[in-house]
Amino acid sequence: MRIEDIDTPALIVDLDGLEDNLDRYQRYFDEHGIGLRPHIKTHKCLAIAHMQMRRGAMGITCQKLGEAEVMAAGGIDGDILIPFNIVGRHKLERLVALARRARLTVAADSEYTVQGLAAAVAAAGVELGVVVELDCGRTGVGPPAAAAVLAEKIDRAPGVELRGIMTMPAMPELIAETIALFDQKGLPHPIVSGGSTPGCFTAHEISELTEYRAGEYPVGGVAHYRRGTHSLEQNAGRVLATVVSRPTADRAILDAGSKSMSGAVYREEAGWSSMGHIVEYPDARFSGASEEHGHVDLSASDKKPEIGERVQVLPVHPCPCFNEHDEIVAVRGGRVEAVWPVDARGRIR
Amino acid sequence: MRIEDIDTPALIVDLDGLEDNLDRYQRYFDEHGIGLRPHIKTHKCLAIAHMQMRRGAMGITCQKLGEAEVMAAGGIDGDILIPFNIVGRHKLERLVALARRARLTVAADSEYTVQGLAAAVAAAGVELGVVVELDCGRTGVGPPAAAAVLAEKIDRAPGVELRGIMTMPAMPELIAETIALFDQKGLPHPIVSGGSTPGCFTAHEISELTEYRAGEYPVGGVAHYRRGTHSLEQNAGRVLATVVSRPTADRAILDAGSKSMSGAVYREEAGWSSMGHIVEYPDARFSGASEEHGHVDLSASDKKPEIGERVQVLPVHPCPCFNEHDEIVAVRGGRVEAVWPVDARGRIR
Repeated sequence: MRIEDIDTPALIVDLDGLEDNLDRYQRYFDEHGIGLRPHIKTHKCLAIAHMQMRRGAMGITCQKLGEAEVMAAGGIDGDILIPFNIVGRHKLERLVALARRARLTVAADSEYTVQGLAAAVAAAGVELGVVVELDCGRTGVGPPAAAAVLAEKIDRAPGVELRGIMTMPAMPELIAETIALFDQKGLPHPIVSGGSTPGCFTAHEISELTEYRAGEYPVGGVAHYRRGTHSLEQNAGRVLATVVSRPTADRAILDAGSKSMSGAVYREEAGWSSMGHIVEYPDARFSGASEEHGHVDLSASDKKPEIGERVQVLPVHPCPCFNEHDEIVAVRGGRVEAVWPVDARGRIR
Repeated sequence: MRIEDIDTPALIVDLDGLEDNLDRYQRYFDEHGIGLRPHIKTHKCLAIAHMQMRRGAMGITCQKLGEAEVMAAGGIDGDILIPFNIVGRHKLERLVALARRARLTVAADSEYTVQGLAAAVAAAGVELGVVVELDCGRTGVGPPAAAAVLAEKIDRAPGVELRGIMTMPAMPELIAETIALFDQKGLPHPIVSGGSTPGCFTAHEISELTEYRAGEYPVGGVAHYRRGTHSLEQNAGRVLATVVSRPTADRAILDAGSKSMSGAVYREEAGWSSMGHIVEYPDARFSGASEEHGHVDLSASDKKPEIGERVQVLPVHPCPCFNEHDEIVAVRGGRVEAVWPVDARGRIR
């Protein structure tokens, strides 16, 4: 089967680009002695997670418990970090059940979360690691003194094991200050976890980091392309689309809208925005989308596509884009090598 | 089972609100002698589509062929309109296969589309209606004279049957001018189809309309709430979420982010924006979201939620929100009456 035989819209991943990314990011972290803990929320795909583990990933990151359940059941044997406050009886029951089958670390930013975890773990007699999430503007406890107080509570709580800290993204001063406090108090921190793909290649400048969570690096996206961390070839995740309408000389409509690309918009200075980079028409602008229509502005493009033509589009944000799809078509040199389920798609609980 | 027993995040639909909406919109269109052709892209759910048909809908609208396949297989016997240019051999094969089992009308805005449809239909010997889509800024052919020329080509093409026109939204002058040209040329127009929920209650002002496509009316959304077309109770579609973190006095974090709510943002004058209306905390602002975290700004809310509390959130745009979920939990008076699959979720082809 060739790429021409795939109906559109379809999510494709170019295997040469994917493998290149997996290799070069793993190599960087290996060279610097930092663990790479891929964030599977980007691809939600067991096949890619296994490729990451086989290359030396020290475990994986799952944003939700439901993703971790899918990955553990699918044979991911490494340590799983869930950087999320697990709250409420339904999830605590599932968490301890999963902890019997997988090595788990979760994040906490409040006493409420810690008490829930400790009670559930003690009742079930399972092992569970906890890292303190530092406040970087979303969840997290701050300032560092408050983080250290919470860490002491985790350290004293029965059942749970204090494993260190996490931040998103990696914030050098915040990390250094917090670790200094942990050391003063004799609190363990085998995990010091930073994250986000854009900061990957400066991770070695933060000496405290033991590991790094990166999600988008296997497949790229418009921001990575424009920033130059991923060449066009390394932007391996693409939506294959068909031009279904050419209403005017400067307008083309694709059959891939926000339900194929996600609703993510990339904005740059001077009011420029895009919902995807069209590989075959780099001067065309993916100017907007309704749910099933991609709107392309051709005014800056000398070449104009015809109805029926197929194009490849780099998504703005791969994580919600992959989550729109049930399958990933893995291609190499124009041939389909595999069709992989997006195993953890929709696992929001 | 009660609503308290549902784990979060979860998509719920309040049945009293849903039924009220289904009744009052159907009543309006019945009173004005205009056919209501619900757009199922909003809910993608057979159970709701059947409720719409039982109340008198004259058929349904599906944005993609894959949605129509799901609806036809699920027992929707009415006429199905697909307001989309069906292009390419894969889809034309599926279209004629579906045309053997369902009464179908599709849209066309180019000779390319018409030729493909006519060839496929003639080869398969099936019946297929075609409406001309008028240019309203997305797909569509314009001006009216060009639409009439395309209509003549459809009328002359073997196999396909010219059934009229469609616009999105309903544009009175464009419709009147085009229908006048159709009448001059003796072209049939049994279907004159307008659309979009916000314009519903002025549909009767456009005398040419034979039918109307509306998607969001069964469940509402933030825009409908703020515009007043849907009371709080009539905003039946909600995401049930849990407060998982309270990092600061004015910040709460929900376990429902863009992968539960969709990435849709509601903007009003003066820079005000929201990603959802929180029923229990109407003065709180759902100020942003990452994929699994909903960010709530409590600065204008005297009441502040506690960690572990559960809230109901009206989505900004129900159509992408419902598409994030595999299931709809149907509740009435706090009791779960049914759990419905989002049958056509992800049917982007």
